[in-house]
Amino acid sequence: MIKNIIALFFLCSSMGFFAQNKPSPHDTEVWEPVPKIVTVNEKGIPSDAIILLSDKVNEFVDYKGKPISWTYKDGIMTVKPREEGARKDQNVYTKQKFGNCQLHLEFRTPIDHEGEGKKNGNSGVFLQTFYEIQVLNSYENETHATGQLGAIYKQSSPMANPAKPMGEWQTYDIVYTAPVWQDNKVVKKASMTAFINGVLVQNHFELTGRTSFSSKAKYPAPHDKMPLMLQEHNNYVSYRNIWIREL
Amino acid sequence: MIKNIIALFFLCSSMGFFAQNKPSPHDTEVWEPVPKIVTVNEKGIPSDAIILLSDKVNEFVDYKGKPISWTYKDGIMTVKPREEGARKDQNVYTKQKFGNCQLHLEFRTPIDHEGEGKKNGNSGVFLQTFYEIQVLNSYENETHATGQLGAIYKQSSPMANPAKPMGEWQTYDIVYTAPVWQDNKVVKKASMTAFINGVLVQNHFELTGRTSFSSKAKYPAPHDKMPLMLQEHNNYVSYRNIWIREL
Amino acid sequence: MIKNIIALFFLCSSMGFFAQNKPSPHDTEVWEPVPKIVTVNEKGIPSDAIILLSDKVNEFVDYKGKPISWTYKDGIMTVKPREEGARKDQNVYTKQKFGNCQLHLEFRTPIDHEGEGKKNGNSGVFLQTFYEIQVLNSYENETHATGQLGAIYKQSSPMANPAKPMGEWQTYDIVYTAPVWQDNKVVKKASMTAFINGVLVQNHFELTGRTSFSSKAKYPAPHDKMPLMLQEHNNYVSYRNIWIREL
Amino acid sequence: MIKNIIALFFLCSSMGFFAQNKPSPHDTEVWEPVPKIVTVNEKGIPSDAIILLSDKVNEFVDYKGKPISWTYKDGIMTVKPREEGARKDQNVYTKQKFGNCQLHLEFRTPIDHEGEGKKNGNSGVFLQTFYEIQVLNSYENETHATGQLGAIYKQSSPMANPAKPMGEWQTYDIVYTAPVWQDNKVVKKASMTAFINGVLVQNHFELTGRTSFSSKAKYPAPHDKMPLMLQEHNNYVSYRNIWIREL
Repeated sequence: MIKNIIALFFLCSSMGFFAQNKPSPHDTEVWEPVPKIVTVNEKGIPSDAIILLSDKVNEFVDYKGKPISWTYKDGIMTVKPREEGARKDQNVYTKQKFGNCQLHLEFRTPIDHEGEGKKNGNSGVFLQTFYEIQVLNSYENETHATGQLGAIYKQSSPMANPAKPMGEWQTYDIVYTAPVWQDNKVVKKASMTAFINGVLVQNHFELTGRTSFSSKAKYPAPHDKMPLMLQEHNNYVSYRNIWIREL
Repeated sequence: MIKNIIALFFLCSSMGFFAQNKPSPHDTEVWEPVPKIVTVNEKGIPSDAIILLSDKVNEFVDYKGKPISWTYKDGIMTVKPREEGARKDQNVYTKQKFGNCQLHLEFRTPIDHEGEGKKNGNSGVFLQTFYEIQVLNSYENETHATGQLGAIYKQSSPMANPAKPMGEWQTYDIVYTAPVWQDNKVVKKASMTAFINGVLVQNHFELTGRTSFSSKAKYPAPHDKMPLMLQEHNNYVSYRNIWIREL
Repeated sequence: MIKNIIALFFLCSSMGFFAQNKPSPHDTEVWEPVPKIVTVNEKGIPSDAIILLSDKVNEFVDYKGKPISWTYKDGIMTVKPREEGARKDQNVYTKQKFGNCQLHLEFRTPIDHEGEGKKNGNSGVFLQTFYEIQVLNSYENETHATGQLGAIYKQSSPMANPAKPMGEWQTYDIVYTAPVWQDNKVVKKASMTAFINGVLVQNHFELTGRTSFSSKAKYPAPHDKMPLMLQEHNNYVSYRNIWIREL
Repeated sequence: MIKNIIALFFLCSSMGFFAQNKPSPHDTEVWEPVPKIVTVNEKGIPSDAIILLSDKVNEFVDYKGKPISWTYKDGIMTVKPREEGARKDQNVYTKQKFGNCQLHLEFRTPIDHEGEGKKNGNSGVFLQTFYEIQVLNSYENETHATGQLGAIYKQSSPMANPAKPMGEWQTYDIVYTAPVWQDNKVVKKASMTAFINGVLVQNHFELTGRTSFSSKAKYPAPHDKMPLMLQEHNNYVSYRNIWIREL
């Protein structure tokens, strides 16, 4: 009899019968969906990451979908500066298109032993092809704040300058949220959080539009997922160890 | 003659003479303020970071500002579970108070060779004392999604479960934005972006209020900067290598 | 005319004509055999290494060639202490036999939160089954110099004590040269060079014989390649990331 | 009474009274000297190491003891190739002299984007000024086995070729034993054990004498401790993170 009463009590309790008197901590628990398990290997690569560049994989093509002109060896891909008078675009693009993502990459700006001062390591990471976060040698190399390493180009100065010397490998970790459109209008702007060498340079910055060299940034037209693009800008910038997680 | 005209053209052009007709790319440059230089040492610690825990520094005290009961040796600080019947709060607090910040720490949940299944490594990181992101052994240890490793406790499930096995050191990287108040009301909620072992678990999540075990989260009253708190929750969770950058 | 004579001189010189008078630097060059190319991956594992323990591979068996009693999960293998009164030998052995080698492994001695003082992390690495280099918690745990971490057990004290605290992963890097026999006699003793956590602990030490607990070490009988053995000695010592290169 | 007999027994036992019957395992223990404690910091540098090159320390001078011509910045020291017709020796030397030692250093051979094929990254590490182990770009750059990366120059080919591509930092770990002299004759030759990028390239090789470019190696005369020397050989080879432990 006593046993039954106790059982009844627990039954009621678990049904929230007495909840009006005292809310149960369990009321505010959420069990579903269960977050997916992601393991990280010794190289720091998450198990659900898509490898875009390694010593075995290179998922980049040129703007026509043809093989890239950049050099690629031992997992390192290096910008091939365009020849004098050549068509400008030697940029490279991922075959796959992406929207929201966590992106990791490593880059290296060229050493300049001869001192000619021109190897400033200019390149860029363009999320969804349109939205650039800057790659540049910003180690003892002054330029405008919105154009240096870690800048959302012409839109947001980096929160710090963690540039390493020329020739050193540096890391970029980026969380990118794609713009959301409704009726051909952007209702949620693209945003980026980014770290260089582990130092926060952008904290959920909302982009004012597509990256533009000389005019005001705009969101001219809706688009879907787009390739990740790396920019050719005359200098021998190198990349390695690029992976992306779709969010 | 032609040559002179061309020379004149370029002279004017470079002086911005025709700028009213064609905007110069320089118009959209921002030069000030210059982002501060931050160097990163071999341990990955930025030069502007405040060290909170290392083999030389321990900036934690108990709630009275007295020495902590936790063990601290060789740079490792380990929760001292409260004694049976003891006053609950064995949490530890930084002496300094913080608002917006980038926080790095490493934690380890205890190994359980004896298999009693109770060492689930419960602890927590409380930004500004009030806002928790969860520490727990979530490796093959099921609980509600809002209570597992990487959860904003009872508010936001982690976007993934990157938990390592018990006994392994794991990393937490957190970007925290403090709530903003006006006339005793919160006008901008607190937000967190967080990575565990390099995997994004929270992406600029806006907290609904202070962490609460059983009731609805609220922002009951304005507060200024507050200490970072680490929670004692019965288990021998260890911490090391904690640093913070004020943003 | 003079020009021709000079030309002739250089021609003869480059042909080694005067070599009897002045030796050429090329005389002391050796071109063959060409050293084999070994690449090292991001985990630091050489391309010619045999993986003995990883998250995918476990090449250890018990003394009968049967599955081991030790636990093995997520790339970590942990000693299973023998039960009270059980047959002593819970040691584990590689299926493959080895002679001269470069060996890398990582080990962890158990944490002892309860303070009973007995978890001293005793185990051992036995090259060719017979020749032990010691695994022990030697962090604030005194024992005889010939028995502590890095000792060639009962033969050679380590040159330094680089022990990390209990619970931390530590590395062993060993270069082992097998004994050479002729007519049942050892004509070249076994030797070891070893580093713990990167610190030299043995420098080409020539072993006086097989490891012996209580009697004098001897080389009783010739043997060929033998398995690598890891010792069970009551404590929950863990191993991971074991690879070996045959020399 | 019984108690006394037992006490007597243990007294005798600990004095080895019964040793003739059954040897005690304690008989073969050696307790003194106690190996010195060495801790290793997060950069992997042992606590008893002398820092020769870091971002704060540079212990190198030229052959006259004057400041070096090499560049030194951010912890990186780079060979300054001699000018056309200049006195040959731009080598650099530690102020302090060393004998037996464990040496760690990192080196980088220059990238050659222009493809002229001459930047083969030639330099060298000379223990005690006289005994060279070779630094060279040996990644897809053929030369004689006794002259490539890891060779004891003109004496011993490396056991493997673990060279990384040009522009990548590589590690050297060397255990060096100085020659021993008696009555102006060498009675124990110098020896080296060395690892490049963690791969064994020399295993206790006994040098036949001082490094010689064109003649047979000899031990012409006794010498005491001598500086560590790094060689200038026309190429922009860089060094960083050099430390040494006296043995």
